[in-house]
Amino acid sequence: MQPYELTLTEASASISSGELSPRELTESALARIEAVEGRVHAFATVTAEIALAQADRATAEIARGSYRGPLHGIPVGIKDLMNTAGTATTASSKVRAQFVPDTDAAVVEAVGRAGMVMVGKTHTHEFAYGGVTPTTRNPWDLERMAGGSSGGSAAAVGYGGVLAALGSDTGGSIRIPASFCGTVGLKPTFGRVSRVGVASLAWSLDTVGPLTRNVSDAALVLSAIAGHDPRDPGSARTPVPDFTEGLEDGVHGLRIGIPTNFFTEDLDGETDAAVTAAVRVLEGLGAVVVAVVIPQAEHLGAVITGIMMPEASAYHRRALRETPELFTEEVRSLLEVGETILATDYIDALRFRQSMKHAWKDMMRAVDVVVAPTVLTPALPAQDTERFRPDGTSEDANVEFGRLSIPANLLGLPSLQVPCGFSAAGLPLGVQIMGRPFAEQTVLAVGRAYELATDTVGRIAPL
Amino acid sequence: MQPYELTLTEASASISSGELSPRELTESALARIEAVEGRVHAFATVTAEIALAQADRATAEIARGSYRGPLHGIPVGIKDLMNTAGTATTASSKVRAQFVPDTDAAVVEAVGRAGMVMVGKTHTHEFAYGGVTPTTRNPWDLERMAGGSSGGSAAAVGYGGVLAALGSDTGGSIRIPASFCGTVGLKPTFGRVSRVGVASLAWSLDTVGPLTRNVSDAALVLSAIAGHDPRDPGSARTPVPDFTEGLEDGVHGLRIGIPTNFFTEDLDGETDAAVTAAVRVLEGLGAVVVAVVIPQAEHLGAVITGIMMPEASAYHRRALRETPELFTEEVRSLLEVGETILATDYIDALRFRQSMKHAWKDMMRAVDVVVAPTVLTPALPAQDTERFRPDGTSEDANVEFGRLSIPANLLGLPSLQVPCGFSAAGLPLGVQIMGRPFAEQTVLAVGRAYELATDTVGRIAPL
Repeated sequence: MQPYELTLTEASASISSGELSPRELTESALARIEAVEGRVHAFATVTAEIALAQADRATAEIARGSYRGPLHGIPVGIKDLMNTAGTATTASSKVRAQFVPDTDAAVVEAVGRAGMVMVGKTHTHEFAYGGVTPTTRNPWDLERMAGGSSGGSAAAVGYGGVLAALGSDTGGSIRIPASFCGTVGLKPTFGRVSRVGVASLAWSLDTVGPLTRNVSDAALVLSAIAGHDPRDPGSARTPVPDFTEGLEDGVHGLRIGIPTNFFTEDLDGETDAAVTAAVRVLEGLGAVVVAVVIPQAEHLGAVITGIMMPEASAYHRRALRETPELFTEEVRSLLEVGETILATDYIDALRFRQSMKHAWKDMMRAVDVVVAPTVLTPALPAQDTERFRPDGTSEDANVEFGRLSIPANLLGLPSLQVPCGFSAAGLPLGVQIMGRPFAEQTVLAVGRAYELATDTVGRIAPL
Repeated sequence: MQPYELTLTEASASISSGELSPRELTESALARIEAVEGRVHAFATVTAEIALAQADRATAEIARGSYRGPLHGIPVGIKDLMNTAGTATTASSKVRAQFVPDTDAAVVEAVGRAGMVMVGKTHTHEFAYGGVTPTTRNPWDLERMAGGSSGGSAAAVGYGGVLAALGSDTGGSIRIPASFCGTVGLKPTFGRVSRVGVASLAWSLDTVGPLTRNVSDAALVLSAIAGHDPRDPGSARTPVPDFTEGLEDGVHGLRIGIPTNFFTEDLDGETDAAVTAAVRVLEGLGAVVVAVVIPQAEHLGAVITGIMMPEASAYHRRALRETPELFTEEVRSLLEVGETILATDYIDALRFRQSMKHAWKDMMRAVDVVVAPTVLTPALPAQDTERFRPDGTSEDANVEFGRLSIPANLLGLPSLQVPCGFSAAGLPLGVQIMGRPFAEQTVLAVGRAYELATDTVGRIAPL
């Protein structure tokens, strides 16, 4: 077994006991990248020199007894939407092709403070505005897409190039690629993690979170990046617990809501079966299954679109005016449409969101979490721009991939994507566990119980 | 001295000691209304029957020892924007001419619970969308305007028809008429008081607060109406203190910020002199005066307009489509313009507001409160639609009256208007005391120190 194959938790134990050095682990990760990156294209930039220097520093610190904790010396990938001082941060757009930030994004600073080693910047959809990552292939099937927009982060974790990566999720951008690439992905509660220094897609929806091999690892990374940041207007003052606490408390007596609508429509059969099996596992562990109806489900798509589009257009307004030709045609046209939306429509969407928050709060009185598929379908062939549904109709792939992500984004809820098996074609399938606002500990505990009871979580794509 | 001439605090003492009954006090207030209302037109509806029934109930409760506290049996006026169960609530608009609510607004319920006696509904500008109250005259000079949009509330308090009234303030609508009519008016921090059941002008700016004869009285009414309301999406969970506590702690050592820009531009000379004199009074009481520069002052008007107009249009959208002819031409055209504003412009205004909040927070590190004029000018002649400035230029009266109110509305700060003397023509002049968010106790203490040291506060217009 190579060091890069260890989970973060395992590697961390070996590093703290002195069996493994950050240098050895980083070299192993870089060798893995060297071996498979040419086929997957997860990274916009591999920062091998920086990584080795940081690894050496971590190795020296640990050697002299200055161990910073479980993330010290662990290789991490950073979505190229997040500022990294001195390293190009392109957001996968020609608009930022020349952009080298002076300072780190708050989350980059946080993982640096925890001693993580930056191995590279991972590919995204241009400015995160899409459910695919055009450059990146799925490590489980190179003919398939990785999903997006944190596709590079998911593929890199999925093939073992890093033990963890940071992603962002505005309309599913952590969970979609994590599901396609067979990794864990956690979209935290809105306001839980600072977005300072992260290019915005839609400020009232954007969240930043970890992609990891398993659930314990996600809890460790979240603990490092969570917390109030007065520079982020969406940042919450809610106290930050230790997210590893209570992680193995199990699900006995926990009430799990299973939606009877919305999440069931146009659902791929294999995904449905895998999620149903995952729910049975949780039931077998003592969870109580309760059927729930998703309120106002028919409006979810219109409301998130009415918020996301103008917020994206407001953020990119100057660039769209000054250098429109630098955007891809796809994103430029989305931004142009967003510019035509009226303030009154946007305000109505915000008010509708508020009423939906109340309805979800009521619905979630009866349950502790809601468990549902993460994406309607496993990864599609890389060239597909539409998804053909079981009933023969089709829909734009970006829209279709994001559909089941909408509730957690729109309502600001934490949602944890966990791999729950494979399709007959060998593609990863995923289940998401949504919780009440700031109840990351609960969703993590459910995911952890599931991963301890099965062998579906933590696999590396055998490339 | 007639009972109606008492301040709320004085009347309350007489009621609790048994010297005065709510019935006597209410009859005295109704007699005063009967005597002068025909000249002032402060009330849309005088609810004499309701008032006498409530007064009798209060009298009986107190007689049997069930005294509810300092507001028990005190006559109050309710702005006609606020729902009152069973009593017409027109918002001074033909759109709601037939509207009789089933339930009370949260604040109406709150003052009812405290035992206050509703004497009537007070006039406003149509849906509060203006700095004047067209129906209402100034009790200090019947040829002059009362200001708005809580003009009826201010005039009624100003002439002694009620001991307190409720108003709302989105762009100065409590402070402007309070200043013109020589009363105290408190615009609380955004989120401090529930807006449930109050017709909205602009949901991210609207606040509800008291108009009273003096500062102590304002503290008493605020204590009754403040608090979290989960039904109001803007409501804050901040704990509610007893606002009468620390009220007489004085201003010794308190740092008072005096703006050197924005509040000084186009300022009427008599207002300037009166505010300067008020600052000297506070300095004489031991306050430390510090010059402050209002940050980003040149953008205040554009930013509040960019937020208020589309929010108002979103709220009135259905009525504007279904019954446009019922709006006055003035408000209809404002709502129509608001409908053309783009979401991206609104979002930019929201983001600008956020950056202004940070800049004010920094500025207010050096001071405890900012003291400045409330309105640029004393009340104008009733028919004037423009204000002529000292330099000979002119501006729309609504815009001009609201200018100095903008910071507290846009930034959500508490601001207390206190009378600070009279012009040579006998018109009231006012000073406003702005504080940090949720620091109502501080602004009240400053206002109280000023009123104890002078004889400018608490006068009734001698009609």
